[in-house]
Amino acid sequence: MKNKTLQIIKIGGNIINDDNALTSFLKDFALLEGPKILVHGGGKKATEVSEAMGLEPKMIDGRRVTDEVNLEVVTMVYAGLLNKKITALLQQYNCNAIGLSGADANCIVAHKRIVEDVDFGFAGDVDTVNSEFVNVLVQNKITPVFCAITHDKKGQLLNTNADTIASEVSIAMSELYNTELNYVFEFKGVLLAIEDKNSVITEINLAKYEQLIEQGIISEGMIPKLHNCFIALKKGVQKVKIGDASLIKKTNNLYTTLSLK
Amino acid sequence: MKNKTLQIIKIGGNIINDDNALTSFLKDFALLEGPKILVHGGGKKATEVSEAMGLEPKMIDGRRVTDEVNLEVVTMVYAGLLNKKITALLQQYNCNAIGLSGADANCIVAHKRIVEDVDFGFAGDVDTVNSEFVNVLVQNKITPVFCAITHDKKGQLLNTNADTIASEVSIAMSELYNTELNYVFEFKGVLLAIEDKNSVITEINLAKYEQLIEQGIISEGMIPKLHNCFIALKKGVQKVKIGDASLIKKTNNLYTTLSLK
Repeated sequence: MKNKTLQIIKIGGNIINDDNALTSFLKDFALLEGPKILVHGGGKKATEVSEAMGLEPKMIDGRRVTDEVNLEVVTMVYAGLLNKKITALLQQYNCNAIGLSGADANCIVAHKRIVEDVDFGFAGDVDTVNSEFVNVLVQNKITPVFCAITHDKKGQLLNTNADTIASEVSIAMSELYNTELNYVFEFKGVLLAIEDKNSVITEINLAKYEQLIEQGIISEGMIPKLHNCFIALKKGVQKVKIGDASLIKKTNNLYTTLSLK
Repeated sequence: MKNKTLQIIKIGGNIINDDNALTSFLKDFALLEGPKILVHGGGKKATEVSEAMGLEPKMIDGRRVTDEVNLEVVTMVYAGLLNKKITALLQQYNCNAIGLSGADANCIVAHKRIVEDVDFGFAGDVDTVNSEFVNVLVQNKITPVFCAITHDKKGQLLNTNADTIASEVSIAMSELYNTELNYVFEFKGVLLAIEDKNSVITEINLAKYEQLIEQGIISEGMIPKLHNCFIALKKGVQKVKIGDASLIKKTNNLYTTLSLK
């Protein structure tokens, strides 16, 4: 029986790159009541470390490719530096956080992306989430903090999109909880006009989503993001919200809620 | 009631620096029956990354000091690269490992080493081990893999000696289990003569330990290591063994066992 709500919150570079923004967000996150999970992206630190090590980013057709050295850098930065920094800060704010990659307790198994036009190297597409173990943590009032590194159960770590991890974890946990997926990004929500930062479309259902694409209001970058949100909803996630860092504050009421109907 | 034996195994640079040695050891470790915990040190990778980033190692009186940049590097390498690599390999060998720093689930709280003659920077001395949570993992047949990073519960990560982590974890867990602490290093055991690699002293009790120091047989570097072992024994650890990578093999019978009496 699902009787509890589990909140999954994903943060990206705009918060991770700014120490004040990160601290402020984590304080709010620590105050969130009920079971919760944090998923974080990478930010610019991996690029900084790569550059400091004299490595050239590998690009094919303008898209970043994860070669072996690059995988080492993102594993160091995402699973090491950022994940442990976030975990230590949450511990400071009395949130009993545990930092995890997909390899830890076999939490997220992925496979190396199948080569079609482009070989993306060690990029992983998610197969399964170990919801049983994640639930052991949640039941023990521990807050999982996932970085964007998974593994293939054959000894290989893989670089995986953080939005996808948030979505897949939410879908897997929706068998046990009412899950609410929250994407925190640089805007207050999906905007009607990009130049007006307050023009938030507060409710978008599937029909409206298709209409907004047709009208050209939802821009290119937002389409895959929203597409993933609707997949999550179709696969059992109860609610998806998109907004800025104040999304998780009780006082906030400006954000976009996505729903099927 | 303590009715089960928990094995804690610590590995250091001599295994971590050599991919073949690491793979071979982890295969053996995965086969070990019963509850177990792995603790790993750093090896030369942190130095390699530091050098690649153009950082100078900071030394005071010939001893390495962990400054802020250095702490970032060891957090990346120990908690990120090595910890996740080891975890992913153990998963491949069907050992359900979880990589942990001391910040994760508040596993190991330490304090910044108090400045006396030398300021060691972000070096941490262990205060408490969260044996309750470690036991939740062990009870769920999950194998904790600790790196040498702890935290102070005030948001600060700290670089901590891996031998000490192994010893403190063993002591804390000895309230719940018969704990056996195994130090894997480059020799087959404590040697009677350093030039004869097979001259292993198979049994050392406290009286013999003091006698060996007096006779000058135990060399300078081994004294703090063995000192820690005897502290562990005095604080409740059942058995301490020292040997090379074959220490954990059933077929091995050449190693040093330490005991109080």
